[in-house]
Amino acid sequence: MNDHLVRSLDVDADRLLPVQPEVRTVARELYAATKDLPIISPHSHVPPQWLVADEPFTDPTSLLLSPDHYVLRMLHAGGAELGDLGRGPDGPVQLDEAGARRAWRILCENYHLFRGTPVKYWFDTTFAEVFGITQAPSAATADAIYDEIASALTRPEFRPRALFDRFGISVLATTDDPLDDLAPHRALAADPTFTGRVLPTFRPDRFLELARPDWSDLVGQLARVSDVDTGDYAGYLAAIEERRRYFKEHGAVSSDHSHADAGTQPLEHADAERIYAAALRGEVTREEADAFRRHMMSETARMATQDGLVMTLHPAVRRNHDPDNLARFGADAGSDIPMGVEFTHALQPLLGRYGNHPDLTLVVFTIDETVYSRELAPMAGFYRSMHVGVPWWFIDAPEAIRRFRGAVTETAGFYRTSGFIDDTRAFLSIPTRHDMSRRLDAGYLAELVATHRLSLDEALETAHDLVTTIPTKVFKL
Amino acid sequence: MNDHLVRSLDVDADRLLPVQPEVRTVARELYAATKDLPIISPHSHVPPQWLVADEPFTDPTSLLLSPDHYVLRMLHAGGAELGDLGRGPDGPVQLDEAGARRAWRILCENYHLFRGTPVKYWFDTTFAEVFGITQAPSAATADAIYDEIASALTRPEFRPRALFDRFGISVLATTDDPLDDLAPHRALAADPTFTGRVLPTFRPDRFLELARPDWSDLVGQLARVSDVDTGDYAGYLAAIEERRRYFKEHGAVSSDHSHADAGTQPLEHADAERIYAAALRGEVTREEADAFRRHMMSETARMATQDGLVMTLHPAVRRNHDPDNLARFGADAGSDIPMGVEFTHALQPLLGRYGNHPDLTLVVFTIDETVYSRELAPMAGFYRSMHVGVPWWFIDAPEAIRRFRGAVTETAGFYRTSGFIDDTRAFLSIPTRHDMSRRLDAGYLAELVATHRLSLDEALETAHDLVTTIPTKVFKL
Amino acid sequence: MNDHLVRSLDVDADRLLPVQPEVRTVARELYAATKDLPIISPHSHVPPQWLVADEPFTDPTSLLLSPDHYVLRMLHAGGAELGDLGRGPDGPVQLDEAGARRAWRILCENYHLFRGTPVKYWFDTTFAEVFGITQAPSAATADAIYDEIASALTRPEFRPRALFDRFGISVLATTDDPLDDLAPHRALAADPTFTGRVLPTFRPDRFLELARPDWSDLVGQLARVSDVDTGDYAGYLAAIEERRRYFKEHGAVSSDHSHADAGTQPLEHADAERIYAAALRGEVTREEADAFRRHMMSETARMATQDGLVMTLHPAVRRNHDPDNLARFGADAGSDIPMGVEFTHALQPLLGRYGNHPDLTLVVFTIDETVYSRELAPMAGFYRSMHVGVPWWFIDAPEAIRRFRGAVTETAGFYRTSGFIDDTRAFLSIPTRHDMSRRLDAGYLAELVATHRLSLDEALETAHDLVTTIPTKVFKL
Repeated sequence: MNDHLVRSLDVDADRLLPVQPEVRTVARELYAATKDLPIISPHSHVPPQWLVADEPFTDPTSLLLSPDHYVLRMLHAGGAELGDLGRGPDGPVQLDEAGARRAWRILCENYHLFRGTPVKYWFDTTFAEVFGITQAPSAATADAIYDEIASALTRPEFRPRALFDRFGISVLATTDDPLDDLAPHRALAADPTFTGRVLPTFRPDRFLELARPDWSDLVGQLARVSDVDTGDYAGYLAAIEERRRYFKEHGAVSSDHSHADAGTQPLEHADAERIYAAALRGEVTREEADAFRRHMMSETARMATQDGLVMTLHPAVRRNHDPDNLARFGADAGSDIPMGVEFTHALQPLLGRYGNHPDLTLVVFTIDETVYSRELAPMAGFYRSMHVGVPWWFIDAPEAIRRFRGAVTETAGFYRTSGFIDDTRAFLSIPTRHDMSRRLDAGYLAELVATHRLSLDEALETAHDLVTTIPTKVFKL
Repeated sequence: MNDHLVRSLDVDADRLLPVQPEVRTVARELYAATKDLPIISPHSHVPPQWLVADEPFTDPTSLLLSPDHYVLRMLHAGGAELGDLGRGPDGPVQLDEAGARRAWRILCENYHLFRGTPVKYWFDTTFAEVFGITQAPSAATADAIYDEIASALTRPEFRPRALFDRFGISVLATTDDPLDDLAPHRALAADPTFTGRVLPTFRPDRFLELARPDWSDLVGQLARVSDVDTGDYAGYLAAIEERRRYFKEHGAVSSDHSHADAGTQPLEHADAERIYAAALRGEVTREEADAFRRHMMSETARMATQDGLVMTLHPAVRRNHDPDNLARFGADAGSDIPMGVEFTHALQPLLGRYGNHPDLTLVVFTIDETVYSRELAPMAGFYRSMHVGVPWWFIDAPEAIRRFRGAVTETAGFYRTSGFIDDTRAFLSIPTRHDMSRRLDAGYLAELVATHRLSLDEALETAHDLVTTIPTKVFKL
Repeated sequence: MNDHLVRSLDVDADRLLPVQPEVRTVARELYAATKDLPIISPHSHVPPQWLVADEPFTDPTSLLLSPDHYVLRMLHAGGAELGDLGRGPDGPVQLDEAGARRAWRILCENYHLFRGTPVKYWFDTTFAEVFGITQAPSAATADAIYDEIASALTRPEFRPRALFDRFGISVLATTDDPLDDLAPHRALAADPTFTGRVLPTFRPDRFLELARPDWSDLVGQLARVSDVDTGDYAGYLAAIEERRRYFKEHGAVSSDHSHADAGTQPLEHADAERIYAAALRGEVTREEADAFRRHMMSETARMATQDGLVMTLHPAVRRNHDPDNLARFGADAGSDIPMGVEFTHALQPLLGRYGNHPDLTLVVFTIDETVYSRELAPMAGFYRSMHVGVPWWFIDAPEAIRRFRGAVTETAGFYRTSGFIDDTRAFLSIPTRHDMSRRLDAGYLAELVATHRLSLDEALETAHDLVTTIPTKVFKL
């Protein structure tokens, strides 16, 4: 590697489009038809406080590096200490000017580690298109780029709301804890000077994991915020339903769920009551806790048929694989590792009950690509309630997205998929992520046109639907 | 979507061929060498009665829509009621003219759901090449297309036998129950005016599932048709062997097997006897029934070494995933969902005994694509009896077929694969399915030529072998 | 097939490079920059005695056919008897001239079986580039090719050392048993006339499988060669450490491990002692033996943090799937079949302890491609000690290598992968295997350039690093 060279950033107008000239011509036309459409982001992790406060971002490191576990993990693998990158014991910490600059230099000196990864692609395009930077990151350019971004961030057009508008975001859904009072969402909705739509998402994972050491404390807090006694199972259900109502009242359109597996087997009511009571006494077993959580997936679907919140599943990641990293830096610090997942049997109890219910929408995401053609596409091609989520996290990347379309489309078409979600903490990467998806879908559709599987006007409609009608319908926006 | 437009059908001569000009030129030459060769269809689901009676097909819906679960499932996901599509409680039902026309309209109005799927490809090409239709299905063209097809179906050249000849089918194997008397096959063989070869296939699945509620009734019927007492295990084996003999006498070349897994572990004879007796008393457990069925896979291989029937496996689909759909519409109504499958351990007992036997041919199909490079190709590249089946059902589609060749060829070459099977109930789609396979194999071979992994004349021979000598040898035709 | 034709060998300068002209141009430039760089082969199976003795190879069959299980398996599947190919009960045997010629004819007559496989590619290029042969193998050319190779082998420039130099091999690691005295390695190191670097690799698999019938005999022999009493668990560890020291003294840089799964769960010391003692008494259970072997993987990592030997894992192959083949021809005779493997949970105990240790390097290989994007790339993109091994054995082939880069790069980049290893017994195929890898990496990088994910100079650096700095660093050369 040779990261001391001064290279130009290559942010070509045709980037990611197919290379073959006949296919590229079609892809350009398809991409042109969608590139300027508003961004619908129905699943994201941007802190809504940023938009409420609308204060200038402090510096490049705290904006672009420290909070992004996609970046941290690779720099860690390359030898960097997370602490030197602005990662504290339980999330990002603000480094002083010297520290922030040093962290930025570590990123730039190790930029070759990201070759071939979407992180490089997102950085390159963000640097070029958001900040007008022309040189590629390297040891030689680290300080200059830092200065250029830092300077930009002091200008009004780089404040959060200005960027929100500039990015053309029409809807942004955040991810929120059931205990959250959603004050930022309320503030934004009430603010006549902010015209964007920022919605909360109900993410109750930790309340459904009865074996967590802090679980009984959590359901105690749940009782307080919902004003419903969670001393028994019925109260617990009622408290959750109350918080869903509260979230919906604040604009939520979906609930999000991420557990170790995709199980949905319901329990007998008496068993659920019994396990719940045991958990409150601190006597629940691992097996009971898992069974209860799977039961609650079925209950969540039942609630969804009543309140209409879309249900999204993001299962099968082993969190905090490295115990030392967890101890030093807390969760979401780069050592979450995906694992195999099974859906055909796991979802059957839920789908067999609610899979064709007119008020349920279930969107299933995976990092285990083997299930796309084998399980998810066949189910979404039959059950009315089910849609296949686009690639997520590690596989939100050009080739993986191409594999996704290749694996899902032949069995489920385009209209049983979810539309793009960015799932990102990196606010500034939202436009390039959505743009990447549009380019890749244009390329895939162009291939279908070039091999006469789709006419050009069908492809144009489909490209348009993928970023407009499909996410709007799937997420009930 | 915008399915009210009037579009032309795009059935280009180069469809599905590689786009790159140098590769396309080679692919065209390879495809030209195979496109007009006779169709060998060694595994299909066409009702042989159609060819015996040779009566005109009634209408487009009952011919092309109601019997085809590939189509039903996607329309169901899109919101259609199966009953409105001509699906009855236990198979297709004949709709009246108004109903048939309404069902057809549902298909055409929802045609966008099939974009990117082979169903659209098969329909487009069948409409254009069999019926000479020029407009794409949509709300605007539904009635016109219905009328055009309905009118064609009244003409002699659209009767079953005329189509059979026009399609160039040299061999067509149907799929048949052991109880079947095979009268249609006998009639066709005896009919000097019919020169095609229509063979039965022995499909004993339900007789091997001892936990089925109707199993003891089934073996009772088996006793009657075979004239062998099935009151004990020895009689059961003898009755099965007798029916295999009967099928073989009527032209059968293979038996077909589809169970939940691929297990082949034999039982001790005494255990098999004991479990069989328990099942007759209605006292078999799930575990015993599974063990017996796996044992019978080994027994089937043993029988195959004696009578020479090719053994085809199509495992690992969870049938009738949606219980409500099963209750209302019976089996094969669109809610079968594939699942993961394991072959390396599962097939070892069978292959360790019979895997190199000169009279056994075992063809293994999968919808779980992960096993192609990991398990099936390595086994077929060693065991003389084993061949890798081409993609089946959900993955009988352009990209999946390309993935299959990409995953299998490097480990097992071309000559350890099965040749194409269409596995279809949709009689009219047989030519386009085989043509699709020939186009895709031409494209794959052309890529090998273009990257100098194969010479053009090797590719030409291989393309020819894939549709002639290979299926002829594998299926002992 | 038609293997009696006389065809020319097609060994084009652009073989395996992308076909699209703009991409090919870039790929040519990238390939040109690496094609003549020295070969680093850190994991191979070449017998070091060949280089010590430097005697002429006897004949084409014993050099190119009999020892190569990649070739034997496919010819076996095609109907050949392994005995006729020069395979004896426990490895290759020398056939007489008539037998060797007959074996060679079997290969050439069945050459069509290898179409689309890398075996054909390696043979074609070896024939053309090493021996200057111009005609493709077939029944018509079998004898002529045999004669041409046999004649070449009598010339000095085809002796092992001359080929070693001609191939440009700078480092060659062999695979060796802990009992081996490494005399050939010592002889080569001491020989001033031999300037190559030939290193042993510590491969202790059978000493870690306590349920093997010959295990207690093996640890007895281990005691003798190490001069450490292996009568208890502590002695066993010490003896292994002593042999590692001996191997390292003889130049070893790595240990290699191939077991049924990737488990690394450590045992309590007392349990390890107890199981070891039980095994010595012949009373170990299958479960205990597996647990002990997994424990030893963790112990191996611990040793590696002390002596620095790189640890390579090649798990999850069911050895000797065909018992009859094992009985007649011993191990490595073509019937090893891969199986599914799980790494996320299996490696966690090891990585959680040592995954970021500065002195551990762990390289993980797989034939189960599903784990690349799901498990291996995510782990290698976080843990400093871990690298993803390139495709191995059945999947060391053009399309599989392309899939590997496609699956791994987006999550782990290039710098967390291992560099190419050839893993071959076929000495003469070493240059074409490394050349194949360089061509394919050039093609992959060219695609990234053509779609503007990488600049040309980044691609040039990366191509160079993949065959120089990366293997040098990963294998501590």
